[in-house]
Amino acid sequence: MALPTTPTITAFERSPDRGRGLARDMRVRWALEEVGQAYAVRLVSFEAMKEPAHRALHPFGQIPTYEEGDLALFESGAIVFHIAERRAGLLPADANARARAIAWMFAALNTVEPPILDRGFATLLERDKTWFAERLPILEDRVHGRLGELSRRLGDADWLDGAFSAGDLLMVTVLRRLEGSGLLEKHANLSAYVARGEARPAYQRAFDAQRAVFTGTPPPP
Amino acid sequence: MALPTTPTITAFERSPDRGRGLARDMRVRWALEEVGQAYAVRLVSFEAMKEPAHRALHPFGQIPTYEEGDLALFESGAIVFHIAERRAGLLPADANARARAIAWMFAALNTVEPPILDRGFATLLERDKTWFAERLPILEDRVHGRLGELSRRLGDADWLDGAFSAGDLLMVTVLRRLEGSGLLEKHANLSAYVARGEARPAYQRAFDAQRAVFTGTPPPP
Repeated sequence: MALPTTPTITAFERSPDRGRGLARDMRVRWALEEVGQAYAVRLVSFEAMKEPAHRALHPFGQIPTYEEGDLALFESGAIVFHIAERRAGLLPADANARARAIAWMFAALNTVEPPILDRGFATLLERDKTWFAERLPILEDRVHGRLGELSRRLGDADWLDGAFSAGDLLMVTVLRRLEGSGLLEKHANLSAYVARGEARPAYQRAFDAQRAVFTGTPPPP
Repeated sequence: MALPTTPTITAFERSPDRGRGLARDMRVRWALEEVGQAYAVRLVSFEAMKEPAHRALHPFGQIPTYEEGDLALFESGAIVFHIAERRAGLLPADANARARAIAWMFAALNTVEPPILDRGFATLLERDKTWFAERLPILEDRVHGRLGELSRRLGDADWLDGAFSAGDLLMVTVLRRLEGSGLLEKHANLSAYVARGEARPAYQRAFDAQRAVFTGTPPPP
């Protein structure tokens, strides 16, 4: 099914993670690559993100956004869901399996990501505060608890519920924020799960495309 | 359309908020009331929530869960979405308007709720820490920033995007966590927005039903 227009997404003009693929446009790029949908990218500066023209697309002045004909969307989870609804490859056809895949999408963003982001904020913004040394272990315990629960559920399966889905896509991007922290590595099956996601050709294409914004060189054809 | 079975949700056996309707089963009850779907409730103790039988339904050992025939779901956002997909009343029929309503669902849970929960955690768990007085204003600034952006987008509209939707339902439950903080009250249109949600008959029925668990008296017929 051909879509009427090529969608346009927004991404950071200057990658704050130096091309490591942690910005939220990575999720959307990966989803588009999984379903084989070509897309255009408009780069936005930190200043322009806070101006009225961008806020008309994204009330919270962030990236990514998604424009397709007369539809404008924000929130990476919602954009990934929209892509998954429109084309095959990210949600199972069976109604119950589809509902469970959507549950994993919400779980990734609403249950697993918040403690990971809290730890990230603290290491980024509170490292020179007097309380950092006392507070960090509390934050890491919270992450560790969630990872333990996720690890037990995943067990030795490849993906969270049957075939790879949009739920796995979001969960892998959420867990990637922990790379280098030593926390993910305590759970061998979660490390392997993230590696399995990163090995997907669609992931690789999306990663190369976002990295090219940082390096200034076009991704391989 | 009659559903094949009456769904069963789970809720706290002992309401940690003393019946104020802040637990996440409130979202699901409200959604079920909006679409006119009868439901059963199974109460779960804090201990039972962490046991294997409940974790089979909810990997992270929380409430609510949702069981309907051979479907079992967790995550309040995903359950509300499932209810909204199955019956009319919570998502617009127009495809673009529907996608935007879903964007507000994700925005409520992934962009607006996290800073509100962070402030809540701090006031609950860190009040006796040496750093509380210095850290609280930082957390409140973050909440204040998000509320300002939301307030500007809402303007003088009744709901976030056209008619009341599942996006409004989730956003109202998220904002209600701020009641009594003085933060919501700085934005008259957001206070009115929450009051508008709370005035809906479906909200009232859901609120009474969850409150009855705390008071031990059945809700009014």
